[in-house]
Parts: sequence; structure tokens; C-alpha cells
Amino acid sequence: MNSANIDNIQLWGETLRLMVELAGTAAFALSGVLVAAQKRLDAVGVCMVGFLAAFGGGTLRDLLLDVRPFFWVRHMEMLWGVLALCMLAMLFLRSHHFALTRKAIEWPDALGLGLFTATGVHQALLSGMPALVAVLMGLITGVFGGVLRDIVCNEIPTAFSDHRPYAVCAFIGGWAYVGLWQLDAPGWLALLACITITVGLRGLAVWRNWQLPAWQLD
Amino acid sequence: MNSANIDNIQLWGETLRLMVELAGTAAFALSGVLVAAQKRLDAVGVCMVGFLAAFGGGTLRDLLLDVRPFFWVRHMEMLWGVLALCMLAMLFLRSHHFALTRKAIEWPDALGLGLFTATGVHQALLSGMPALVAVLMGLITGVFGGVLRDIVCNEIPTAFSDHRPYAVCAFIGGWAYVGLWQLDAPGWLALLACITITVGLRGLAVWRNWQLPAWQLD
Amino acid sequence: MNSANIDNIQLWGETLRLMVELAGTAAFALSGVLVAAQKRLDAVGVCMVGFLAAFGGGTLRDLLLDVRPFFWVRHMEMLWGVLALCMLAMLFLRSHHFALTRKAIEWPDALGLGLFTATGVHQALLSGMPALVAVLMGLITGVFGGVLRDIVCNEIPTAFSDHRPYAVCAFIGGWAYVGLWQLDAPGWLALLACITITVGLRGLAVWRNWQLPAWQLD
Repeated sequence: MNSANIDNIQLWGETLRLMVELAGTAAFALSGVLVAAQKRLDAVGVCMVGFLAAFGGGTLRDLLLDVRPFFWVRHMEMLWGVLALCMLAMLFLRSHHFALTRKAIEWPDALGLGLFTATGVHQALLSGMPALVAVLMGLITGVFGGVLRDIVCNEIPTAFSDHRPYAVCAFIGGWAYVGLWQLDAPGWLALLACITITVGLRGLAVWRNWQLPAWQLD
Repeated sequence: MNSANIDNIQLWGETLRLMVELAGTAAFALSGVLVAAQKRLDAVGVCMVGFLAAFGGGTLRDLLLDVRPFFWVRHMEMLWGVLALCMLAMLFLRSHHFALTRKAIEWPDALGLGLFTATGVHQALLSGMPALVAVLMGLITGVFGGVLRDIVCNEIPTAFSDHRPYAVCAFIGGWAYVGLWQLDAPGWLALLACITITVGLRGLAVWRNWQLPAWQLD
Repeated sequence: MNSANIDNIQLWGETLRLMVELAGTAAFALSGVLVAAQKRLDAVGVCMVGFLAAFGGGTLRDLLLDVRPFFWVRHMEMLWGVLALCMLAMLFLRSHHFALTRKAIEWPDALGLGLFTATGVHQALLSGMPALVAVLMGLITGVFGGVLRDIVCNEIPTAFSDHRPYAVCAFIGGWAYVGLWQLDAPGWLALLACITITVGLRGLAVWRNWQLPAWQLD
């Protein structure tokens, strides 16, 4: 955790980091629209759940790490982008008689999970947090957009009741980031490894229907 | 956005601003009591939902804009006032066999929406936020007291599922504030225009039963 | 509220304060595990609800009082401790066919309420908040871990719908802390009085089945 290392992270650029944030925001916005559509919310409600899913996790990350201004204040074009995305998604849903199966929501959700986990770990390391806290910040950033989305839709959050690994994937991906970073690996490598591992594990869990160890009462 | 303009906003006085905040707090506290009573919460629960509805939106605004101390720390008499209001409302509800129709909740809710939207835009402009962010802060301040109220009562928030314009009214009212402010209109005019437009549009939507454009799947 | 008094609070030691925080965290983690188990969440979900119940109230307290770093960043061993506790609790639940009655959840919940209320009042007084705000911070700290736990489990929070005194106990205990502190009583006495009164009142309410005054509509 020498300062050369921190410079290293800052140098590989805001660009890659911004792209990851943009893609994660879009993925979660889409998942929000799909969940809200399933609950038959009105047109404005669908957009608001899209916004909450897209910006909720990152805003909570910035609040907890005391980072101001928020990323959506620094990059206001994201706000217009998410608004456009929500409207296009609604038009598409209506015209294509798209089946709102649980599966359709899982893929953008898995993508957003990996992308936001990476930005959370990244930001926490920049703020000088210790390893375990950085991993937890990644997990919170990745998971809480979806949790807020499910709470306002009056559902028990998928992240807690899916019975397939979800938060665990973010936890492992976060440790991969921290591990590579402590080995002085280049910043882009740690970021991409975290994303690949998190999305890959969640994807495998969905595809192969992995189950968490059963523990429940009969 | 010259500094004379900011002085202008500060000069027309804390008084009007405080009155707006007081009225909005009272209106939302009342809406909280009515929703909680409908859900048959206990006497303390009714007060707590009243408090959450009354102070939730403004506290979230101050958290996001990093404004301390919170408005209810600066004006502690509001805390006692809301407590008294909740108790009086409960006594009134019990003695008058007041029918807790959805309509009874809509009016204080519409009033609170307009009043809090105005304080949110105002505070965000004072903090130097750009126009779009200021409008969004107004929307968040106006809407999230009611959203928190509905979440703790285990309902999908009215703001998302009403099918009549709600958040949209706050959005339009917020732009009216920002527009007048950028035209160097006096601060009190921008504030009152925002309140009138938001409450008026929401009132019309409730009265005329306006519907948001239908978009849903069959 | 002289500065000698503040020194007094700081001197009787971080030790007692840390022990109270540890015990409260453990108690609420346990209550989270029990509620989540009742809702049949998966193994990771049970841990996450345990964490949310354990750290939610204290994190909200630190956010509102603008205290950084969070207590779980200063004492990271708590994170591993709560993880171990959640896993042990799950193993115990499975092997002992423990009946998840409402009663089983009430005791750790009452204990956590008292312990966290005391830490909330303590921290608010250290931050120089006035008496009423300090009591409210205690109440928020004590109550909101459980409120978040119940919200993610898609329940109306027990704190609002129990019909037996809950938040009221924290309110009275908080005033006991503030009262003793203003009488220049030693810090440890105020802290222990607050815990004893809050837990004792809630315990009596559960045991004797005290009811809040009925106020509801027929």
C-alpha cells in the first residue's frame, strides 16, 4: 500500500473507471425497469425504480466513504442517459411483448453486480480503507442498488433469498481486486479481474443452478 | 448564477423559507399519521411514521448535500410540534370516526410534496449545484418522505404506483424554480411559483383523475 | 455541559463504551439471524440480515452525526466476530431444532435496544448535540437496526406495530442518560442507568404484556 501504488491506480485512468461505472449504471437501470414492470408500476415509477437501482449503490458508497460530489453530479450526462434508457426500455417492452421472466432480469443484474463491486473496492482503496473494509464497500456498492430496487417494489431482496450465490461472488471478486493490488499488479488488471470473477461466478451460478449449502430448519 | 443572485436568495429571508419548511413538515407528518393509522400501527408507531414522513425527505436532502446541522437540529421546536401534531391527529381520528379513505391522505401529501420540493431546489442552488441536480434534489426531498413512509408501512410507494402524475409535478415545479432563478427573478417569486405549480398540478391530477400514459404489458 | 464534564465522559473510557457496542452488535446480529431464518432466507442472506441489524443502527448514527471512520472501520475485528456469530447461530439452529418463536427474538432485541440507545446518546452528547437531539439519536440508533432488519425481510417493523412499549423504553432511557449527565454524574453511571432502564422497561413490557394505550379506530 505504498504511495506509488496509489498513483498507479490513479494513473491507469479515470477513463476505464468511468466506462465501468457507466456500464454498471446502465445494467442496473435495466434491471430496475424490468423488476418495476413486473410489479406493474406506472411509467414514472418505472423510471424512478430504474434510477434507484442505477444510482442507489454508488450513492450509498459515496455517502459511506464521504466522497463528494457524487459521481452523478460529476457526470450529469449519466442522468439523461439513464432517463433515455428507461424510456427506450419501456417502449421496447411494450412493442415486443417481451416476457418478463426472472431469467431476463438476472443477466443485467449479474453484470451490474460485477461492475459496481469493482468501482466500490477501487474507491475504498483510494480512500485509504483497509482490505476487509474495501471488500465490504465493494459488496455494498454491488448489492445495495438491487436491494433498494427490491425493497421499494415490496419484495424480499433477491440478494438475500435467491439460494444461489450472489453476494458471495462479489465478496470473492473483491478479494481478487485487493489481492492483485497488494501484489502491485497494474490497476486495470485488478479491476478487470474483479469484474470477470464476479460476473463469471454469478453467471455460472445462474447457468448451472448452483445452490448455497442448505442450512434451513425442516 | 452570479453572486448577487445568491445574495438575493439569502436576503429574501430565512423567514419565508422556514415557514415553507414548517408547513411541509406538518403536512407530511399528517400524511404519515393517516397511512400508519390505516395500517393499524400502535400509538408509538403512528408517531414514528409521522416523524419519518415529516423529517425523512429533508434529512436525506441534507445528507446528500452535506448540510449540517440538520434543519431539525437548528429548529428543535419542530420536533415538539410534530409530536404534538401526531398526538392531536390521533385524538381527532379516534373521536371523530374519521374515514381513512385514500382521498384524505392525498391532500396533505400533495401540499407536502410542493413545499418540500421548493426547499430542496432552494438548498441545492445555495450549495452551488447545477440546474439538473438542483431539480433532482427538489424531487428527492419532496418524494422521499412519502417513499420512506410507505416502505416502513410495507406498501409499494404511492409515488411509483399511483398512475396519476406525482413525481412529474415536482419535476416541473423544480424547473420553474430554476428557470425563474436564472432569469434573476426575486427569490420569493421562484419559491412560490415552484410550490404553486407543484401543488396545483398534483391537485389537478387528483381532482381530474389524470392518468400517466399507459405503457404496460397486457 | 461544561468541558470538564465532556472530559469526564471521555475519561471513563473507551473500554466500557466499546464493550457496550460489542454486546449490542452481537445481540442485534442474533436477532437478525433469527428473523431471517424465520423468513427462510438463504445462508448468505441470513448473514447479511445479521450484519444489517448489527451495524445498521450504528452506521446511521455515525452518518447523521458525521462521525468518521465508522465504528466497524475502527474495530474491524467486529466484522469477523459477527460473521462467526452468524455462522455459529445457523449451525446451532439447524442442529438443535430450535423453535423460532417470536419470544426467542424478543430478548436479544431488547438487549440490543438498550445497549445501542446508550451508545447513540453518548456519541451525540460528545458531538455537542442538545439534550432532545441526543435522546432522539439514541432512539434512532437503538431502533433503526431492527427497523432495517424488518424492512429487508418485508415486514412492518416490530418497533412500530408491537402494541407493547418499545421505542418509548429507549426514549425514557435516553432521558435518564441526559439527566444524569447534566447532574454531573460519572459517565459510567449514566451509561449503565440508560441501559438498565431501557432493557428493564422493555423486558417488563414483554414479560407483563404491557399494552400501549389503545387509540385505534373501530
